[in-house]
Amino acid sequence: MEAREQFGLPFVAEVLDSRDVGLVSSYADIIRIGTRNMSNYALLAEVGRQPKPVMLKRGFTATLEEWLNAAEYIYKEGNHQIILMERGIRTFETASRNTLDITAVPLVKAMSHLPIMVDPSHSGGKRELVAPLARAAVGVGADGIMVDVHPSPDTAKVDGAQALLPSEFADLMESVKALAGVLGLKT
Amino acid sequence: MEAREQFGLPFVAEVLDSRDVGLVSSYADIIRIGTRNMSNYALLAEVGRQPKPVMLKRGFTATLEEWLNAAEYIYKEGNHQIILMERGIRTFETASRNTLDITAVPLVKAMSHLPIMVDPSHSGGKRELVAPLARAAVGVGADGIMVDVHPSPDTAKVDGAQALLPSEFADLMESVKALAGVLGLKT
Amino acid sequence: MEAREQFGLPFVAEVLDSRDVGLVSSYADIIRIGTRNMSNYALLAEVGRQPKPVMLKRGFTATLEEWLNAAEYIYKEGNHQIILMERGIRTFETASRNTLDITAVPLVKAMSHLPIMVDPSHSGGKRELVAPLARAAVGVGADGIMVDVHPSPDTAKVDGAQALLPSEFADLMESVKALAGVLGLKT
Amino acid sequence: MEAREQFGLPFVAEVLDSRDVGLVSSYADIIRIGTRNMSNYALLAEVGRQPKPVMLKRGFTATLEEWLNAAEYIYKEGNHQIILMERGIRTFETASRNTLDITAVPLVKAMSHLPIMVDPSHSGGKRELVAPLARAAVGVGADGIMVDVHPSPDTAKVDGAQALLPSEFADLMESVKALAGVLGLKT
Repeated sequence: MEAREQFGLPFVAEVLDSRDVGLVSSYADIIRIGTRNMSNYALLAEVGRQPKPVMLKRGFTATLEEWLNAAEYIYKEGNHQIILMERGIRTFETASRNTLDITAVPLVKAMSHLPIMVDPSHSGGKRELVAPLARAAVGVGADGIMVDVHPSPDTAKVDGAQALLPSEFADLMESVKALAGVLGLKT
Repeated sequence: MEAREQFGLPFVAEVLDSRDVGLVSSYADIIRIGTRNMSNYALLAEVGRQPKPVMLKRGFTATLEEWLNAAEYIYKEGNHQIILMERGIRTFETASRNTLDITAVPLVKAMSHLPIMVDPSHSGGKRELVAPLARAAVGVGADGIMVDVHPSPDTAKVDGAQALLPSEFADLMESVKALAGVLGLKT
Repeated sequence: MEAREQFGLPFVAEVLDSRDVGLVSSYADIIRIGTRNMSNYALLAEVGRQPKPVMLKRGFTATLEEWLNAAEYIYKEGNHQIILMERGIRTFETASRNTLDITAVPLVKAMSHLPIMVDPSHSGGKRELVAPLARAAVGVGADGIMVDVHPSPDTAKVDGAQALLPSEFADLMESVKALAGVLGLKT
Repeated sequence: MEAREQFGLPFVAEVLDSRDVGLVSSYADIIRIGTRNMSNYALLAEVGRQPKPVMLKRGFTATLEEWLNAAEYIYKEGNHQIILMERGIRTFETASRNTLDITAVPLVKAMSHLPIMVDPSHSGGKRELVAPLARAAVGVGADGIMVDVHPSPDTAKVDGAQALLPSEFADLMESVKALAGVLGLKT
């Protein structure tokens, strides 16, 4: 059983080619646009015509303005179920894979009504960074977090170095819920 | 009465010139090296010979490695009371003054035993960002925060746009203490 | 008559969607992949199956390694007629639209056998920068330059601010040829 | 005999501490402010009171506006003999040590009357990049270049990897003079 099913989570599927959008949309609960496709306008428009929620990852080199413009390409085709996902930006600092732009959360909330989540797994790229960054995301007021979990990270085909074990994920959720409770947030 | 005195806080004084270090050290509780002087090695060495704690702000364009090397310049002269202060880095994003590198906190904690604080006022440069970023700093596990407070921000000579009123600061401290309590941190 | 025809230049057409590649390929002399599509792997693969030369612009946030990897996506499908086009990268400097990475030219020449050209129009974004940057490109050893020319820049629908008049272009070509002659380059 | 003397070049000495400015000024033909001290305002002011020309290297993370402001700190103290030196900026690209911002040359010429030179040695950090970048600097219209030369680069205490042999330097000067001649520049 996948970790996704264990925790009752939706099936999020990434789409890479405008020709595949219909097929992906027919199976997925949520269609995801990855960071390298944030400016793929043909793909954005096609996704905008689907009856499924879209998770739009920020381009790791995109400004907030460019990100919200990309969301607009989806929105204007009629699909208004858009979730923004901050996943770190490229900077001069190379000690982490990318620099999580935590400031993006309150800024986007002031510029847009769209929900914004944080991905602490891909931004840092290291397992030991996931929990602190997830807690930072709750502290800053993000609408949600997305965390990589794998039952056997060392044998994962991709992204194993940043994946939590299901037990670590469960522990993280405990502290996240406690923090959210203090801040009066729903979980 | 200054906000500093109202809250029983130390007198932190910035030093800009190697010739002024002795004088500043004789009055200040904590000597501060500003972001633009992080690589001023003459200044670092001179501060390293003082009997006062030093707050070393990260250069806004410095890597973590360069920052810790700068701390080493102080340390090797005999002054081991060093506080690191993350205050945001220069990136391509211009929606905030700088990008708070929240990932720096767990990374520095893995690389060094020195305490690391976060400055949510200078990184964002806007009053409305201070509270969310301060809460992110607590969530990520920072050893402290430094916040600009002014009784009349609109008439402040510098940095008024990012200063909190004393009453806003007191409110922020309430939520910071509550978050820290959940995480088992001392305040 | 277009400036292109006046100077006997090829018809370069940009393709944005993997579904349009066949159509564009049937009309264009050279298929262009724009800077925002450099990581659109579906598009790269489709272009790699066409019998036409491809101009691959560098993503304005792509490293040289990522750029050459993108070229590999085209190459491995069988199309080996690839021209690389350096057009400036996103940096902290905002005085010009982008920062022309002139160092990319000798670096790419050491890493790859593919020809590399320079676009002085899009990198700077200002007419007065075109001639100096074009001459820098010749000096650094680029295999060619691509320059925006328009008979009436003030009425151009796009990119008018960076377009040269045909007469300015002719003047620039004179100095480019003279420089290339000194360096023993063919023009 | 130093390469400097062989080619009849001035003695350029870098100053690091405001307390040493007088001493350095008494020996040097040109006082140099290094890239890490561009924002050291105490040092800039002190150098501004000396009767010697100053070479102000661009901070490798400084905007053109910040660089010209730093020059103003020298200028307003009375020293108007200022030479600006572009030496590359920090970007996401790590294939070269820094990214030479060749666009800075025409931009600075439009913003200021100060002469601007280019340092192709420190920006690229590799010997094989020096000649192409030097020729790019001539092409773009720089007022001069500064090149690292060493009779035995492999045994140089610093910066050997980017130093030319005197014979390589002489060869480079030949092509530089030829290019400058085509452009009608004095050498």
